[in-house]
Amino acid sequence: MSASTTSLEPLFRPRSVAVLGASADATKLGGRTLLNLRERYRGRLYAVNGRGGEIHGLKAYKSVAELPEAPDLAVVSVPVGAALEAVEVCAAKGTRSAVLYTSGFAEIGAEGRKLQERLLEIARARGMRLLGPNCMGFLDIAQGTIASFIGPATLQNVVPGRVAILSQSGAIGTLALAYAQERGLGLSLWVTTGNQCDVDFSECLAYLAEDDETDVILAGLEGTADGDKLRAALRLAHAQRKPVVMLKIGRSEVGAAAVVSHTGSLAGNDAVYDAVFRAHGVYRAENFSELLDVAEVAAAGLYPENDRLGIVTVSGGVGIVMADEALARGLKLVPMPPEAQARLKAIVPFAAVRNPVDATTVMITEPKVLRSFLEETLESGGYGAVVVFLATLGMSIMHVERMLTALEGVRQAYPKRAIVFVMASTRETRARVEAAGFRVLDEPVRSVAALAALAHISAAWQRACPALPPPPPRARASGVMPAGEAEALAFLASAGIPTVAHRLASTREAAERAARELGLPVALKIASPDIAHKSDVGGIALDVASEVEAGKAFARLMRTVKRTCPEVRLEGVLVAPMVAGWLELILGAKRDAIFGPVVMLGLGGIYAETFADVSLRLAPLDAGAARAMIRELKGYPLLLGARGRPKLDLKALVGALLALSRLALAHRDAIESIDINPFMLLPKGGVALDALVVADPLRVRRSRGSRP
Amino acid sequence: MSASTTSLEPLFRPRSVAVLGASADATKLGGRTLLNLRERYRGRLYAVNGRGGEIHGLKAYKSVAELPEAPDLAVVSVPVGAALEAVEVCAAKGTRSAVLYTSGFAEIGAEGRKLQERLLEIARARGMRLLGPNCMGFLDIAQGTIASFIGPATLQNVVPGRVAILSQSGAIGTLALAYAQERGLGLSLWVTTGNQCDVDFSECLAYLAEDDETDVILAGLEGTADGDKLRAALRLAHAQRKPVVMLKIGRSEVGAAAVVSHTGSLAGNDAVYDAVFRAHGVYRAENFSELLDVAEVAAAGLYPENDRLGIVTVSGGVGIVMADEALARGLKLVPMPPEAQARLKAIVPFAAVRNPVDATTVMITEPKVLRSFLEETLESGGYGAVVVFLATLGMSIMHVERMLTALEGVRQAYPKRAIVFVMASTRETRARVEAAGFRVLDEPVRSVAALAALAHISAAWQRACPALPPPPPRARASGVMPAGEAEALAFLASAGIPTVAHRLASTREAAERAARELGLPVALKIASPDIAHKSDVGGIALDVASEVEAGKAFARLMRTVKRTCPEVRLEGVLVAPMVAGWLELILGAKRDAIFGPVVMLGLGGIYAETFADVSLRLAPLDAGAARAMIRELKGYPLLLGARGRPKLDLKALVGALLALSRLALAHRDAIESIDINPFMLLPKGGVALDALVVADPLRVRRSRGSRP
Repeated sequence: MSASTTSLEPLFRPRSVAVLGASADATKLGGRTLLNLRERYRGRLYAVNGRGGEIHGLKAYKSVAELPEAPDLAVVSVPVGAALEAVEVCAAKGTRSAVLYTSGFAEIGAEGRKLQERLLEIARARGMRLLGPNCMGFLDIAQGTIASFIGPATLQNVVPGRVAILSQSGAIGTLALAYAQERGLGLSLWVTTGNQCDVDFSECLAYLAEDDETDVILAGLEGTADGDKLRAALRLAHAQRKPVVMLKIGRSEVGAAAVVSHTGSLAGNDAVYDAVFRAHGVYRAENFSELLDVAEVAAAGLYPENDRLGIVTVSGGVGIVMADEALARGLKLVPMPPEAQARLKAIVPFAAVRNPVDATTVMITEPKVLRSFLEETLESGGYGAVVVFLATLGMSIMHVERMLTALEGVRQAYPKRAIVFVMASTRETRARVEAAGFRVLDEPVRSVAALAALAHISAAWQRACPALPPPPPRARASGVMPAGEAEALAFLASAGIPTVAHRLASTREAAERAARELGLPVALKIASPDIAHKSDVGGIALDVASEVEAGKAFARLMRTVKRTCPEVRLEGVLVAPMVAGWLELILGAKRDAIFGPVVMLGLGGIYAETFADVSLRLAPLDAGAARAMIRELKGYPLLLGARGRPKLDLKALVGALLALSRLALAHRDAIESIDINPFMLLPKGGVALDALVVADPLRVRRSRGSRP
Repeated sequence: MSASTTSLEPLFRPRSVAVLGASADATKLGGRTLLNLRERYRGRLYAVNGRGGEIHGLKAYKSVAELPEAPDLAVVSVPVGAALEAVEVCAAKGTRSAVLYTSGFAEIGAEGRKLQERLLEIARARGMRLLGPNCMGFLDIAQGTIASFIGPATLQNVVPGRVAILSQSGAIGTLALAYAQERGLGLSLWVTTGNQCDVDFSECLAYLAEDDETDVILAGLEGTADGDKLRAALRLAHAQRKPVVMLKIGRSEVGAAAVVSHTGSLAGNDAVYDAVFRAHGVYRAENFSELLDVAEVAAAGLYPENDRLGIVTVSGGVGIVMADEALARGLKLVPMPPEAQARLKAIVPFAAVRNPVDATTVMITEPKVLRSFLEETLESGGYGAVVVFLATLGMSIMHVERMLTALEGVRQAYPKRAIVFVMASTRETRARVEAAGFRVLDEPVRSVAALAALAHISAAWQRACPALPPPPPRARASGVMPAGEAEALAFLASAGIPTVAHRLASTREAAERAARELGLPVALKIASPDIAHKSDVGGIALDVASEVEAGKAFARLMRTVKRTCPEVRLEGVLVAPMVAGWLELILGAKRDAIFGPVVMLGLGGIYAETFADVSLRLAPLDAGAARAMIRELKGYPLLLGARGRPKLDLKALVGALLALSRLALAHRDAIESIDINPFMLLPKGGVALDALVVADPLRVRRSRGSRP
């Protein structure tokens, strides 16, 4: 374990626990907690209550100070007015960690935030780790550490297992817990972090990534203030091959705005979270059902080794609905090889044998047929996952026993394949089938979706996890940031991004000469360190076909801009050859408040911008990530030469993206954003036609325009 | 009831039933059916079995001929070799309807198809209606007519109610039944149509639309061979305000291909089904969970009157995840009015009061606060639906009783609002809350999705249902179909679609003259009745800037095409003014094999075509449908003048779509497809720049080129 996660051991695996605010009243949070621990916890348990006496047969200490030892964990359930003192007494005693339920801190505004800062100071001063405030605590099911006031109805059927639930929001955590319980999904730890003044989501995630009791991490995230910390935790989970199945709230604009007001912290751009998740193999679920579906299949260890799905079914219709879902979720439905199809036809002449393989209900009445079909599919199809739809076979223990007898040895012969039986079943028959090594699920479409999720996770594990950015430069950037398009293009060129040839002309004659020398037709654009959006002020002339026209255009642009923006400094006009007719892209880098520089690639042109066809990745990029960004574009076929166009230079685009990533990272303390719009991608090479660099106004000197 | 549905009365509501192939062995289909009916059916029941005797205390007749009456319904469970005879005997007796389980008909290929045709002849000759073959029969839960071999485990908890399940596939129907039973969703009829040689999906749908016992129709569809019949049934459901919640298989290409091979019939284009569903307000679910979610909320009658959702929550996080889903599903999260927000703040100072309204857990501990928040939301927010998230409140009957006391009268005061409580609950508490008139659901995200589905259905009921196409003209079209672009443009112009001015030039001089007269620059396109795709053969010159250039282009095009296609007839070159710079659209009409003419609107240009931004509607269109098609385009903002462009003439586009719809419908027996690509939409008007009409080669004479 790393140093940071070791310090959470006393919190999540305490040998002794004290409950502050303990009471005999189970409707109170402290009373409920004491009862929960009293029933299940196997370590040393202390009740603390100002009035002393005895609760549930336990001696009640009047203060933590009176305890015979400094407990590993104090669960603090006191009103907000008493919280600071209670935490202070715990820390003074040498208590190693505390859970604080109490609300009335950062979530209520400025005053609460101050109180919360004070809380953190107290804990930090004595090295006590603090979970909360405003949280629901945590549960360790196997050890019985129910450090939470969660009620008996939700707790009663929770079974130990190897799935951890981690949530900032107590309500989201509680719902996930309730659904896990309904499904009989076994849990290791359940943790809610609330206001996370000390122990936060990312730290808990890192702990779970290294926790021996946990295989699968089900997570509910509102946002983080420290992007690098979250990335480091996700890297750890990736390295340990532990899937992170995520419900991230704030996908919509209204949602994101509400997250900001709800958590009182920066939420960051949801699309950037998506990019982070994609790069780290995190699976983002759309609702609780999907969250649990994926966690359940992951807990069974059904990771397909490839993205090919085989479907064996007793019903053509259900086979097709599963096929539809598989394709929608990015799985491949490779057909069975022709010889294998012939062998299956020989067994059941009316079977459909391509894929889906519809063996008809003969598979139920004659289990040997099921065996033949399943074995053939596994052996000849090469599918990483095979899903077998068996209708209501599982409602009859007789049918189930006959089936398992017929299938003897099949599971063992293909140990690495993800095999799922989808059927209606009873608790008894399901247990029987699962004891034989086959997983039973009950909804065909969602089963396929869950297998697809695991195939994606499994594929992400085959890839390297993206590197963390290097620590930011110690000194602030001293370089002068480019102002105006000419300087921006030079800045990009110096970073290795090909840029269009151009001349700055400050007279009509110079413009004409530049047009002649650069080659017609040309584009003319007003040059000013003060104008970011040149077309908005009438500062652009395109497709200028002759020298004379270039001179006229120069005069017109200067006149127009002097009229529309009399206050700006004009350096003249930038003249560049027209490069048109190929594919316009937009390349950009933008500093995200949470995650630092984000590289953006989009299709340009008016339609593509309207369709927002954009892919994002955090810097630093490697070539694989750059290629993945390109493939993610909906318009990707256009780059490959769709619709009779030539194939474009993908290598050049990868190079430009990598250079942009390096540039954005090197200047991340100084640059707010870089926009290359358009970047014209050609069959050979590519070229930045326009560029805009926006510097952080607080951090750096900006060029005041180096030319007159 | 209409005539066609009346004839299904003896089938679905029989006063007497005979089971052919009855036996005492409940593992056999006939035995199981007899047992099912024996236990539940209240009409006169007859067992028929070649061996005679007695089964379950019922006299077994050796033949239907011996029965004391002609039964309303015969359920036939005999091997395929005996099926025709059994059906013949039933028909001869005067039996009014039959269910035939037997497989081995059309689903196995040509031989089976013949057998099935014979079956139909027999039934039709005596006016006997036939459900099947290769089906699982049907259930009428309330009447106990279990005309199916479905097993006791699936049947045992099925309760009567007002939701009907209709499915071609027995397996899909059975799954839907199993899920309905798990949820306690009450059913009226459950029908599987199998090979539907006589009674088909559409006819059953029409029956259910008119059935007094049914409010909600849950349907599983593979495809139909008769598009107009399906549309007529959907119109009936629309007219009766009965929602159709649909699982349509074959969304993917693999799926669609499998449907064709599975059903042995034309499946049609899935996108066209989507268009049909959208136009008729059918809700298409993605999986069984969603299918049941929507049916469940529909069964509760929770139809929002508008698309605005109010969210009241005890948890900020869950509120946000619901908000995300609402927006993704097209609901509007209108904020509470400022005065209302102030009133809520006065009650709970730390509440979020915009929308989502997060009143915190105070709503649970103080039910009066819940009342205030809910009333304020209903009264001031104007939301068609309000969803209230209450975490685990429903796990405690005490909390539930306190809540219901506090809420007294609220439900009655807002009878038309869709109010849903989302919380964990027990069977007991849920029943208690629902008795008080509030619906309880348990998954917040899916609950919002289901409310959104009902809002869409409800909105579709406000709109007129699209008209059915008029019957096809009795005589085959006698008109000569246009060949070549000039005739195609003239054909469109005669139908009222504005087309670009153009001249056919057969000499270089004529081309120059046309260029001069039409106005420069011009486009030149080769004119031949034999060339459909002019650019493929080098037959197009664009942006020709002068008369001289036009002459040169004429010569070049003629030369090139004579070389590339020496065998075609060349009429010359079409000269037209260039119309560029506005929005290129693609308009089209294509005859679907199932549904007839389909009108298509897409954004043109290379990007938009790659993104396949297209909307479809069946002809005939009305103006509302044409406007809906336009709004459905992802690139719709471009038409409204996004990105600094002028607003384009939507009225002209609507007019062109309507004219195209009329044209395609009038010539539906003669025209395979019409393509207008591009149709240039302008700020004032719009114009077809190119057109291609493809005639049905079997049906009509095609112009042989009226010009030399």
